Amino acid sequence: MVAPTLISVDVSKPAWEQDPEKPLHNRWHPDIPAVASVKEGEVFKVECIDWTGGQIKNDDSADDVKGVDLSQVHYLSGPIAVETAEPGDLLKVEILDLGALETWGFTGTFHKDNGGGFLTDHYPEATKACWDFEGVYCKSRHIPGVKFAGLIHPGLIGTAPSKELLDMWNAREKQLQDELGTGKQKTLCSCLATRPLACLPEPAGALLGKLGHFKHGAKHASWAAVAAEAARTVPGRENGGNCDIKNLSRGCAVYFPVFVPGANLSMGDMHFSQGDGEVSFCGAIEMSGWLELKCTVIKGGMKLLPAVGPSPLSVNPLFEIGPLEPRYSEYLVFEGICVDERGEQHFLDATLAYKRAVLNCIKYLAQFGYTEEQIYLLLSCCPCEGRLSGIVDVPNAVATLAVPLAIFDRDVRPSGTALEMLAAGVRVETTQAKESDVTAAAIPYDAKLDRCVPCAP
Amino acid sequence: MVAPTLISVDVSKPAWEQDPEKPLHNRWHPDIPAVASVKEGEVFKVECIDWTGGQIKNDDSADDVKGVDLSQVHYLSGPIAVETAEPGDLLKVEILDLGALETWGFTGTFHKDNGGGFLTDHYPEATKACWDFEGVYCKSRHIPGVKFAGLIHPGLIGTAPSKELLDMWNAREKQLQDELGTGKQKTLCSCLATRPLACLPEPAGALLGKLGHFKHGAKHASWAAVAAEAARTVPGRENGGNCDIKNLSRGCAVYFPVFVPGANLSMGDMHFSQGDGEVSFCGAIEMSGWLELKCTVIKGGMKLLPAVGPSPLSVNPLFEIGPLEPRYSEYLVFEGICVDERGEQHFLDATLAYKRAVLNCIKYLAQFGYTEEQIYLLLSCCPCEGRLSGIVDVPNAVATLAVPLAIFDRDVRPSGTALEMLAAGVRVETTQAKESDVTAAAIPYDAKLDRCVPCAP
Amino acid sequence: MVAPTLISVDVSKPAWEQDPEKPLHNRWHPDIPAVASVKEGEVFKVECIDWTGGQIKNDDSADDVKGVDLSQVHYLSGPIAVETAEPGDLLKVEILDLGALETWGFTGTFHKDNGGGFLTDHYPEATKACWDFEGVYCKSRHIPGVKFAGLIHPGLIGTAPSKELLDMWNAREKQLQDELGTGKQKTLCSCLATRPLACLPEPAGALLGKLGHFKHGAKHASWAAVAAEAARTVPGRENGGNCDIKNLSRGCAVYFPVFVPGANLSMGDMHFSQGDGEVSFCGAIEMSGWLELKCTVIKGGMKLLPAVGPSPLSVNPLFEIGPLEPRYSEYLVFEGICVDERGEQHFLDATLAYKRAVLNCIKYLAQFGYTEEQIYLLLSCCPCEGRLSGIVDVPNAVATLAVPLAIFDRDVRPSGTALEMLAAGVRVETTQAKESDVTAAAIPYDAKLDRCVPCAP
Amino acid sequence: MVAPTLISVDVSKPAWEQDPEKPLHNRWHPDIPAVASVKEGEVFKVECIDWTGGQIKNDDSADDVKGVDLSQVHYLSGPIAVETAEPGDLLKVEILDLGALETWGFTGTFHKDNGGGFLTDHYPEATKACWDFEGVYCKSRHIPGVKFAGLIHPGLIGTAPSKELLDMWNAREKQLQDELGTGKQKTLCSCLATRPLACLPEPAGALLGKLGHFKHGAKHASWAAVAAEAARTVPGRENGGNCDIKNLSRGCAVYFPVFVPGANLSMGDMHFSQGDGEVSFCGAIEMSGWLELKCTVIKGGMKLLPAVGPSPLSVNPLFEIGPLEPRYSEYLVFEGICVDERGEQHFLDATLAYKRAVLNCIKYLAQFGYTEEQIYLLLSCCPCEGRLSGIVDVPNAVATLAVPLAIFDRDVRPSGTALEMLAAGVRVETTQAKESDVTAAAIPYDAKLDRCVPCAP
Repeated sequence: MVAPTLISVDVSKPAWEQDPEKPLHNRWHPDIPAVASVKEGEVFKVECIDWTGGQIKNDDSADDVKGVDLSQVHYLSGPIAVETAEPGDLLKVEILDLGALETWGFTGTFHKDNGGGFLTDHYPEATKACWDFEGVYCKSRHIPGVKFAGLIHPGLIGTAPSKELLDMWNAREKQLQDELGTGKQKTLCSCLATRPLACLPEPAGALLGKLGHFKHGAKHASWAAVAAEAARTVPGRENGGNCDIKNLSRGCAVYFPVFVPGANLSMGDMHFSQGDGEVSFCGAIEMSGWLELKCTVIKGGMKLLPAVGPSPLSVNPLFEIGPLEPRYSEYLVFEGICVDERGEQHFLDATLAYKRAVLNCIKYLAQFGYTEEQIYLLLSCCPCEGRLSGIVDVPNAVATLAVPLAIFDRDVRPSGTALEMLAAGVRVETTQAKESDVTAAAIPYDAKLDRCVPCAP
Repeated sequence: MVAPTLISVDVSKPAWEQDPEKPLHNRWHPDIPAVASVKEGEVFKVECIDWTGGQIKNDDSADDVKGVDLSQVHYLSGPIAVETAEPGDLLKVEILDLGALETWGFTGTFHKDNGGGFLTDHYPEATKACWDFEGVYCKSRHIPGVKFAGLIHPGLIGTAPSKELLDMWNAREKQLQDELGTGKQKTLCSCLATRPLACLPEPAGALLGKLGHFKHGAKHASWAAVAAEAARTVPGRENGGNCDIKNLSRGCAVYFPVFVPGANLSMGDMHFSQGDGEVSFCGAIEMSGWLELKCTVIKGGMKLLPAVGPSPLSVNPLFEIGPLEPRYSEYLVFEGICVDERGEQHFLDATLAYKRAVLNCIKYLAQFGYTEEQIYLLLSCCPCEGRLSGIVDVPNAVATLAVPLAIFDRDVRPSGTALEMLAAGVRVETTQAKESDVTAAAIPYDAKLDRCVPCAP
Repeated sequence: MVAPTLISVDVSKPAWEQDPEKPLHNRWHPDIPAVASVKEGEVFKVECIDWTGGQIKNDDSADDVKGVDLSQVHYLSGPIAVETAEPGDLLKVEILDLGALETWGFTGTFHKDNGGGFLTDHYPEATKACWDFEGVYCKSRHIPGVKFAGLIHPGLIGTAPSKELLDMWNAREKQLQDELGTGKQKTLCSCLATRPLACLPEPAGALLGKLGHFKHGAKHASWAAVAAEAARTVPGRENGGNCDIKNLSRGCAVYFPVFVPGANLSMGDMHFSQGDGEVSFCGAIEMSGWLELKCTVIKGGMKLLPAVGPSPLSVNPLFEIGPLEPRYSEYLVFEGICVDERGEQHFLDATLAYKRAVLNCIKYLAQFGYTEEQIYLLLSCCPCEGRLSGIVDVPNAVATLAVPLAIFDRDVRPSGTALEMLAAGVRVETTQAKESDVTAAAIPYDAKLDRCVPCAP
Repeated sequence: MVAPTLISVDVSKPAWEQDPEKPLHNRWHPDIPAVASVKEGEVFKVECIDWTGGQIKNDDSADDVKGVDLSQVHYLSGPIAVETAEPGDLLKVEILDLGALETWGFTGTFHKDNGGGFLTDHYPEATKACWDFEGVYCKSRHIPGVKFAGLIHPGLIGTAPSKELLDMWNAREKQLQDELGTGKQKTLCSCLATRPLACLPEPAGALLGKLGHFKHGAKHASWAAVAAEAARTVPGRENGGNCDIKNLSRGCAVYFPVFVPGANLSMGDMHFSQGDGEVSFCGAIEMSGWLELKCTVIKGGMKLLPAVGPSPLSVNPLFEIGPLEPRYSEYLVFEGICVDERGEQHFLDATLAYKRAVLNCIKYLAQFGYTEEQIYLLLSCCPCEGRLSGIVDVPNAVATLAVPLAIFDRDVRPSGTALEMLAAGVRVETTQAKESDVTAAAIPYDAKLDRCVPCAP
């Protein structure tokens, strides 16, 4: 808590007006210069603004979520150079502590035409829930009757890619996009509505740290070239990045591959809490926050990471978790199999199985006095666990979603009493934050929703 | 432990020569008669033979796995009628205790031409590991240096389908098969080698309880008709079934939809332990075992289960887990994203992401003195957890695989010491059970392996 | 589960009519011959009758508890010789599994004139609760509204003492008894009513295995001499013995000092569940049960155990616990300090502090619809934890008692609602098993109760 | 983290020179005025200096521990008035978060002539270990080879006593002191060396908040009278106070009785980590720290707390713990029985049983390369658990001490390897902080040490 702060932010200022010596960035590129450097073993603190840079407000309308500018995300603090790190090393980053910079956070679902989410075809409108933090706990006026402890973590943390790795990313993601509509398209496009399919490099909204940014003022000579090829931060990749793994929390250690001299570690997208999958996409309890870190280098250690693929760069970080995670003792668990909402059979498709488990859970829990949108938001941010339970029993993958019973102020187990409650039509008194032009009517599954539409230019 | 035994088995006899009053079955069909009935609240014990009916032996050759007759699986005990259960009810089944009937079990990987598995394209040969049970713990002479406590559970437990539900299953699974090669194929066929794509009804090998069986003797008049349409037991479906959920263990309660009068509960495929996903397919530590159960009926309770799909039958069971699961405190966690081994980008594909996490783990742990086949077997049966960590960050799904450190007798965390061990080429002294015609050479990824081949007639 | 049974019992027969080849015993003495022997590494099963030898019945009267013959306890299975064990070795006993032999057990409080208990001065009458086992869970018709999973363990397990150690025991326990009333008496006698103060050797009731027993028939020539000096089994001592540690459960390993050739391991007093302290003395959920064990010898390992005291024999066993204990996540915790019920201050007395914590808990929970006797019984046998929280802050020791909230079917946390319930005088409908001559009136604290009375001759 | 700070401290200043508007206090008395007030439901932060007020330094000598002025302890922040709280209410204090104000803390053992400790008769000299915090973890240069996560908590938190309660305290503690040497002494004085027996009111060193302090300057007219009867803060009592319960940590809620208008809550003695019992007395990892709190009042709720004793004030707080505690999975557990180091038998004495368990553990672990003093310090501050395992098996109480294996960088389980290490005399390279006049020689048990000496005037 009292380690020196390496990078500070001011949450009252725009992302592009933070510390001019240590500006933020929102793209991955090897040429974005480090803004600070640390020695091995040094303990330091890094502050981060929320991933949208303050676009979402603590109020009761979801219009800000609906109109969010996604070209700007995610705002990251860094890169931080670790003095002795060289390509081929393994960088051990110990997450010694984490915290919030404000006493509130938000969870939202994007509108289907601006971001979407795992269940956009069921819940196409933007919604929002604001959460108040009370120390380690949080509550929301928009989803009454639940309370849980946060498992604070960075949704996004990673090392900088080398040029070779960046080129790999851009090539494969473009190919995915290009295949759309050609008959070669892979997998889930026909049944999982998400827009866009991938997020290719996009100079609009690019903030490139010391190279300058999209808003105003002088840019470095290389700005345009870098912005044109810098990777978006949306997906997790070989460098870690936006993995949204809720278990990267207090006391854990992450081992990152090092692709560039100094490793150039960046991080952001702080979450007060998240459910496995972060299903609503906007998604965890998003907040501004801080991390306390220590870095160590295992020289030549990248060879400990297995390369599975055509390139020696085809690796992924690994991490250790310790005894500090909250441990609930009682869960209600929902199953899903890969048969879609139209009744069609898919083949060992864990994504669809999880979609089904999440839907089963939403519709089940909504019976206890909630709207489906409230449960969708809740599952995105509460400490629920998504499991790949069965992945070989053709043709059905089985996924499970386990929700801790202790987060509810009522008994949500199936019982005769629950049936009576259902018959009586009990509802929770609540205000929900929705788009201003949305009626309160239930929104049915939209089987005709356009799917896998490429990014608008 | 001393509850009355409702159904007994004799592990020294073939599956078709068990108690003639309470014969086993290996297909799902509403017309398979119940062999026993219980009252609500009654505590009773059910014994089950292993899923293959004794085809696999406790020896050091994997030839039995290679040649296994999969048309016979899974051998189930039941159906058990619950006296007051009617269609539309919810059947609560409390799993009060479980145990083994013998002191050993097995884990195997099927040959690519007979069963396959999650990683068949990497590990196409049959392998086997036999496990010795010492009370709650197990060890294997084929994978030395690991020991863990079992989390005994039925891989397969479910209620009987109604005719309407059975028809739904057969229609959709046939459609999946039929689409293969038409350009409409939906799925992972292009990147996930598994044979077959689905298991359609197949009279060969059918054991239909009191209706008779494939082996010999008199069959009921309806045998041929039922065998021609009875569903295979391979996948989990709306009735539960072969969900292979490792958490259905001591002290848990499962809520099943009831589709036929009496519910007609069946179960089998007992596992001493399993990892999430059961990746090697043959897959957990398979054994003969027993369960102690209690059934309760929530009248009309099926309406508590959400129907998501075109039919009101499109539901899934849910279950509760309590404080009895083993809780490890330290894990090493592997990440995977949905980029395949050829470097191609897929779209939010959790199956591929998990495949990648499993591969990363196999190749990482193999460095500590194991063959990759040994780790593949181990991950299929040890208490590892597979998580759907991120499912919205286009285009990459992120899956994680968490392995408890306490199961190893050595420190498998990344470190300088691990690097030195790698350099020194340390290997565990071990005998592995493989097919008799396989050389010890490492088997490379076979990118050309035929994929998604339909069942042979 | 299917390991060979080394020692069997028949719960329908008296303790002195069990297997004549492997008779039971209820005293500690080096000359009691081993009834069986095992090799290192062998897995074997041992059955045990309940500690009273069937004196307590599954009915609704506590008269059997009131009149119990305590000279007979505890009936043990063994001694079992471990082939290579020699004095000076350390015997590792792995508790591989455990189970019940019947589907019920009992918890009682002894009458103040026959056994007593931790709170005899508050609850002087005999009471009893019978528990029904449903697999891993138990419930009692005498204490409705609670349900919990058992943590089966042997209340008593230990190695045989050498003659030298036996003499130490007898000398020191006699001295304690002799000091009573002399002004030298140690510590708690003035404030903790228990009868007797110690249990010195007593031929009445002695069952000495192959040397013969008190009931009838031929006794070995040495019977009288051995019975006259054989130690009673009531307290835990240097050899382990009746330590009543609830954590000696599934998957744990105990390291015992070896005092005689073969170690001569004995065990009994099986508990389905127990709370820390086993406060009611009769005390856990007592039952007949079985253990599955494996023994290993660490040659010369007794020197690893520290001898603290005048003799090199002044050691205690140690043990390991693993990840298999049930883990509750929410507890209500009661504090106690060492001020007695008369308001007198004691000095760092953890026994009194714990007595106060237990009393606080009893009186608190009784407000939720129970009698105090019911809660006293419950705390003796449910999985509650007793902690020595502070032991240095003169003059008060602080002890805490943590009760898992999940065992209750109602919310027992302090709240305005709880206050209303208290005001309304809500009570649970229940039958309690008490002595036949006891009225239902509340029994006040008896400050004049005789304390520390020596054994009757 | 960002809640408003109600009371601030400056760790660079003496205790008596903190915020003059909100001065600290180190005595309990109803007339010490509140320094701040809060509304129900308000979230606020309180900072506290370490309990000694900065007397102990981060260096390698234990001379500061040896010469510490104990008349000054414990320095508390508060009293804080809760607006609506009245005598007879129950005050719910939620501990929402906690943290350190500096990056180091200390553990010490007091010299036998100045403070003593649980094992003063074995380890009479002053020692010290300084700990460095790295986020949630800590390490000590004085005890190498161990690392663990903190479970930060206030060693001391409580409400103000009423005059009636204060008088009860003073009377009973004086009586204890007065009985010493009269033959009526109750307790452990004959076997547990501690000085003093109790800490009676003592104007020297008294800091009385707004009434003034011992150091200098103007005192309130009532200062002398209040100082003469204000209770010392050493023991836990009916108001909570110095209970040193390590589980009062993140996310827990404590229910305090209210004795005076406003409740007047005070707190201090922040611990980064503590073992059950805090055996070395100086004892946890002591530090300056902060708490984030929320208070709620249950009107009339004190009647929910059972009064056990002659006065309706004879109550104790209770508390709830949730899913946030670190959960280790593997422990090594030491047993102790109430036979003292001279071999004398005591009667159900849990204090002695725990003393023996702690000694057994110290001497066992010291074999792995430590001095006994290092382990004594470690057990006082690491997350070990002290249990009252058996409290009824006359004459022996059984206490257990469970130490998590994961805090050590080596395997400390009993084994042949451990024996070899012992034979080889392996020692850890370490500097220990001891008194400057102490030799490194092992210090034997001092059976003749004066015991229970009253406070010097």
